[in-house]
Amino acid sequence: MKSFDKLTAALRRLPGVGPKQAERLALHLVRAPASESEALSAALREAKARVRSCAVCLDYTENETCRLCSDPGRDKSVICVVEQPPHVSALERSHGYTGLYHVLHGRLSPLAGLGPESLRTAELEARLKAGGVAEVVLATDPDTEGEATALFLAQLLKAYPVRVTRIAQGVPMGGHLDYLDEQTVSCALKARREFTAS
Amino acid sequence: MKSFDKLTAALRRLPGVGPKQAERLALHLVRAPASESEALSAALREAKARVRSCAVCLDYTENETCRLCSDPGRDKSVICVVEQPPHVSALERSHGYTGLYHVLHGRLSPLAGLGPESLRTAELEARLKAGGVAEVVLATDPDTEGEATALFLAQLLKAYPVRVTRIAQGVPMGGHLDYLDEQTVSCALKARREFTAS
Repeated sequence: MKSFDKLTAALRRLPGVGPKQAERLALHLVRAPASESEALSAALREAKARVRSCAVCLDYTENETCRLCSDPGRDKSVICVVEQPPHVSALERSHGYTGLYHVLHGRLSPLAGLGPESLRTAELEARLKAGGVAEVVLATDPDTEGEATALFLAQLLKAYPVRVTRIAQGVPMGGHLDYLDEQTVSCALKARREFTAS
Repeated sequence: MKSFDKLTAALRRLPGVGPKQAERLALHLVRAPASESEALSAALREAKARVRSCAVCLDYTENETCRLCSDPGRDKSVICVVEQPPHVSALERSHGYTGLYHVLHGRLSPLAGLGPESLRTAELEARLKAGGVAEVVLATDPDTEGEATALFLAQLLKAYPVRVTRIAQGVPMGGHLDYLDEQTVSCALKARREFTAS
């Protein structure tokens, strides 16, 4: 049973996977056709080797800059700030936005000991210093940590001559961006409002 | 994003993993140190290559026969029949049993179209024909499918001169063996009762 238990232990280390799910996953993988486990291994190897951060917005890409940052049709004067890469996909699926993005790869969470150092804001400031940006849309999640992150960013961005907006509270309080339907996300983007730290 | 999405899709194919969990797992794996994803890949490869069924009881092992079937200290006259390999571990953890096991690798589930052909009963019958077995303990889960499986086995085993018992209903109805505490499992084993199909 040694290698079966090792597989269970390796799966158990994944976030949100408990002992029973790890066992179920291991049983499935041991029984599944070799093609399926090989596809998973290959996808994992490929992702580890190829996925990198876009040099401009920090979203995941396989090139120097991502598809959106390389697209001449996108409005380079607007930057939408999100917490994580999947949030870019969630906003893109809403078809309500034509600007660029900036991925923080984190959020403020004092309880979890995550302060400003856990946010990739230096890269955002560099983009603002380079000029040509008129508006920054704060699209962090509308929950406690996301609001705290938005407030922190609003304070930080006071130093730059840009309009700072926040996606509208069409998104329900306590919700998570990537669980919402496209229509809600689209409305929230369109109704974005001025946002300043008092 | 292509290889990130491919990884998400490969994880999505695992049982009980929804789109959000697949995304969370992919994010984690892409960010985790290479050592962690390599450990997972290695464990998967090793398990696929090494895990095989014990020639006697069909439990997972890396040898011709498993640790328990090779142990001269185990009582070879009692066979405890379980649905899946992790159930052997659950019963062993209770320290209430010294006999051998037989893993069915399945259960009857007419709604899911799983009939007797999905149970590894031929190997169990071969063991009974070989002789030396005095008792078969039916330790399938105490839920609808597990009870149906136990009844089917009781009927099947009428052809053999063995005592057929069922683990006691100390285990709560609708429960699952491997979620229970050792004490409950141990009591249920000790209070096993005669079981015959009427």
